[in-house]
Amino acid sequence: MPKDLPPHIDAADLTAHLIRCPSVTPEEGGALVLLQELLEAGGFRCTRVDRGGVSNLFARWGDKGHERTFGFNGHTDVVPVGDADAWTKPPFSGELDADGVIWGRGATDMKSGVAAFVAAAIDFVRETPPEGAVILAITGDEEGESIDGTTALLDWMDDNNEKMSVCLVGEPTCPDRMGEMIKIGRRGAMTAHFTVTGVQGHSAYPHRANNPLPALARLMDRLASHELDQGTEHFDPSTLAIVTIDTGNPASNVIPAKTRASVNIRFNDTHTSASLTNWLRAEADKVAAEFGVTIDMGLKISGEAFLTPPGELSDLVSKAVQTETNVTPTLSTTGGTSDARFVKNHCPVVEFGLVGHFMHQVDERVPAAQVHQLKSIYTRILRDYFT
Amino acid sequence: MPKDLPPHIDAADLTAHLIRCPSVTPEEGGALVLLQELLEAGGFRCTRVDRGGVSNLFARWGDKGHERTFGFNGHTDVVPVGDADAWTKPPFSGELDADGVIWGRGATDMKSGVAAFVAAAIDFVRETPPEGAVILAITGDEEGESIDGTTALLDWMDDNNEKMSVCLVGEPTCPDRMGEMIKIGRRGAMTAHFTVTGVQGHSAYPHRANNPLPALARLMDRLASHELDQGTEHFDPSTLAIVTIDTGNPASNVIPAKTRASVNIRFNDTHTSASLTNWLRAEADKVAAEFGVTIDMGLKISGEAFLTPPGELSDLVSKAVQTETNVTPTLSTTGGTSDARFVKNHCPVVEFGLVGHFMHQVDERVPAAQVHQLKSIYTRILRDYFT
Repeated sequence: MPKDLPPHIDAADLTAHLIRCPSVTPEEGGALVLLQELLEAGGFRCTRVDRGGVSNLFARWGDKGHERTFGFNGHTDVVPVGDADAWTKPPFSGELDADGVIWGRGATDMKSGVAAFVAAAIDFVRETPPEGAVILAITGDEEGESIDGTTALLDWMDDNNEKMSVCLVGEPTCPDRMGEMIKIGRRGAMTAHFTVTGVQGHSAYPHRANNPLPALARLMDRLASHELDQGTEHFDPSTLAIVTIDTGNPASNVIPAKTRASVNIRFNDTHTSASLTNWLRAEADKVAAEFGVTIDMGLKISGEAFLTPPGELSDLVSKAVQTETNVTPTLSTTGGTSDARFVKNHCPVVEFGLVGHFMHQVDERVPAAQVHQLKSIYTRILRDYFT
Repeated sequence: MPKDLPPHIDAADLTAHLIRCPSVTPEEGGALVLLQELLEAGGFRCTRVDRGGVSNLFARWGDKGHERTFGFNGHTDVVPVGDADAWTKPPFSGELDADGVIWGRGATDMKSGVAAFVAAAIDFVRETPPEGAVILAITGDEEGESIDGTTALLDWMDDNNEKMSVCLVGEPTCPDRMGEMIKIGRRGAMTAHFTVTGVQGHSAYPHRANNPLPALARLMDRLASHELDQGTEHFDPSTLAIVTIDTGNPASNVIPAKTRASVNIRFNDTHTSASLTNWLRAEADKVAAEFGVTIDMGLKISGEAFLTPPGELSDLVSKAVQTETNVTPTLSTTGGTSDARFVKNHCPVVEFGLVGHFMHQVDERVPAAQVHQLKSIYTRILRDYFT
């Protein structure tokens, strides 16, 4: 054990140190450098996997290619602070207040999670070296485009025969109370941008124009009224939200030629982005024919739905959570996207982390006690996995 | 007869002189001053009726309060030239080209019309002084807000016991061919601005938000699908055009709190702005209740529908048009609003003028021959009226 490490890594203290690294996406901000030093001191072999202006850190303890390799995934980048003056304490202070709360951007999302699994991993392998390996895949681009983040790490791992047997993503997962939720899958997400084109004209002579707006209103009404499904055993019903309709026509005597709308769909595993694309295109074509307009559709696929069916990995995490918190976690697939959507192509993946309050908000903060508890849970997961 | 008037007023020449007065609303630009000099030389008693930064001219020949008082109404203000460089000839040149066409802003809308009725009136009263009176009510604010234009003239006339028995508005009325259309009424016009307010939220959790956009789409679909009426003997069916829907939400993961839309209604005399307001409010209330959102409605009433039923006045104008052009005019209520919507509260009113090509466009122009023909028609109308 390297002599410059303390007897135990204090996960709350490490959280505060990470908050002081201003790692707003895509800035590395010193966060990965700090973690690399610590992990190398703890006996991990580290590689910086930088791509496309984004920094990522791969770390492994134990033998490469071991059949029992436990992986952790998380991110050190944070969203912008917003209005810095609106913060009670400076957003990169990492200050611990008299109530034992650590303040700053990333306190919950998710420098605490990274600190907890880094602390757990280092202390675990030096105290009870396991028969197996531990991999940490830590990205600096989860909050941004996520193109050169965890995906870059996984690509590099494939190229270098690095393989996790299972993986735990340390994102905040508990809505209100520590331990109450493990995520075993995520809904897919996609956005469709519609442009409806008609023929411009004068409002006094609508028969000489072809107004694209009634067609768009009809299409949006149909899409928003449609029940995509009723949910599945593990998933809530899929949802479609119209997020914007815009025309930008300031003149009440002009019928515009074009109008635009966007819908965002969160879908469970009864759909794929391809099946939904077909549905959207068919509905748009129907309305286009009814109104004699042209409807173009652009797509952004954020991720497909996926599920790690309840089993060995979720049982392992559940049991550790229950033992440490006395709370029985539910297995959920709710919420937005996370990097688990990439990891699931590599190995079984679940997500567990602390309470997600204050994520992306002003005055983001986390109780130090919760970070300590999270480290204990991660430690127990490692211990149980390797026993 | 004042000795400084030529034997006959050349209406085309007067049009060119008026075009050279840059009277973009609300600038008087010298146009009314020029007309006042001419009319006073022709024996008309003139009064400038200026109000709210707008200039207007009232002129009467003959006795005040005579039971046979023929009125003309028109405007000398013009819309802006737009891109002056796009014009073939300078927009205030009033140039007469080799083909006998007069060029410039206001050539059709409607300095030619004003020139024609001023020339007709002056020449008519000095050549065959009628048993009666002629009133010219000429405004400098028809293209703008129209608050202190013809309305100011009519208010002043009421206050001063000045009364027209009938009135002809000299706006361009013929779609393609001189003489083909007289307007005996106009549809009403109004714009309703809707603001739908729900509850903002995250697209991933639509059940925690209340998206105002599906409610707006439903409301717009219902309004646009509704048949207001099937038209009447003298009016086309009323129309409703959605002119804009705007949200301005750039984030596909955010459900917005508010969205807006505007609809423009052109309505015949089976409706009033009040009856339509009640209908719109009822439809909005229904949708608000269905979706649990708030829908605010702002209104702009541009004018009520009105009709001068076919009869003495339209017969008089029809006969003169037919005699001078060999074209039988149709009696129409099509088109946008005009100051006839104010005059109709004062006395029976119809509209007749030349071909409306090039109105508000670059390279606005008018054939001089058409202006001469229009003067002949107006002269015949006066002669027939007083015979």
